[in-house]
Amino acid sequence: MSEKSNVTFQMHPIGYVRSNGDRSRLEILEPYRPAMEALDRFSHVIVVWWASQLDTEEARNLMQCMPPYADGEIAGVFACRSPYRPNPVALSVCEMISMDAANGLIPVQYIDAEDGTPIVDLKAYFPVSDRVRQARVPEWCQDWPEWVEDAHLLEI
Amino acid sequence: MSEKSNVTFQMHPIGYVRSNGDRSRLEILEPYRPAMEALDRFSHVIVVWWASQLDTEEARNLMQCMPPYADGEIAGVFACRSPYRPNPVALSVCEMISMDAANGLIPVQYIDAEDGTPIVDLKAYFPVSDRVRQARVPEWCQDWPEWVEDAHLLEI
Repeated sequence: MSEKSNVTFQMHPIGYVRSNGDRSRLEILEPYRPAMEALDRFSHVIVVWWASQLDTEEARNLMQCMPPYADGEIAGVFACRSPYRPNPVALSVCEMISMDAANGLIPVQYIDAEDGTPIVDLKAYFPVSDRVRQARVPEWCQDWPEWVEDAHLLEI
Repeated sequence: MSEKSNVTFQMHPIGYVRSNGDRSRLEILEPYRPAMEALDRFSHVIVVWWASQLDTEEARNLMQCMPPYADGEIAGVFACRSPYRPNPVALSVCEMISMDAANGLIPVQYIDAEDGTPIVDLKAYFPVSDRVRQARVPEWCQDWPEWVEDAHLLEI
């Protein structure tokens, strides 16, 4: 238990984030488009993406950070959503505006990932497994919006 | 866009799921324990795990499935939470019972992953980015519980 594991898991991009000003969409590679079937019967999707710019030895070894809007607090990266982490995999819950499965296109309301970011998975948002009724958060998060739909308020 | 990408991203286990009957816990490897700092100030954690038994060419090429409790429906794997997917990465939102960072232990109320499953990331559950107020789901999910806390009712 005292060393890092040599076991390796391999992922490949299934698509890319495209952002152009305030318009964002997910572009899914052709071999994976059959996997989009019926995704448009959900309103939201969890986009699993790879923070490829932080896939470095240095960034992967950063174990603690100073969370945003949390004056002087120190937190482990597992307590943060910073893309600096041992495996730089990130999650964004996105509202889908529409879906064009034939061309692999999903315009979304907003995604906090840059243009060109590789996507490694999409998962329909299921309240039964993803929505927590009573979630406790630290004091430094207690003034934040409580719902995804309100998230853009942070940026105003 | 017509072929799969040769680009590869590498992940390593940061810990393992341990299950023994109805008791489950997350065991985090020593080098990653500093990343647990302050995680216990949250009630819930998103466990990102690797479905290592389905990391096969055949399972990764399955693009559609028959969702559970959905008589005769066909859905793409992106519209399902089946661990069969192009990159067999899975998410489980878990309520933490306690945390022992020194020993890397997090007992959880429940996790839908088998004993020995590799964990690749932990992410504190932030309502601002993870909780959707109004989520639309297909007809076949509309009788399911609407909240994570109720999820165990499905198994009764």
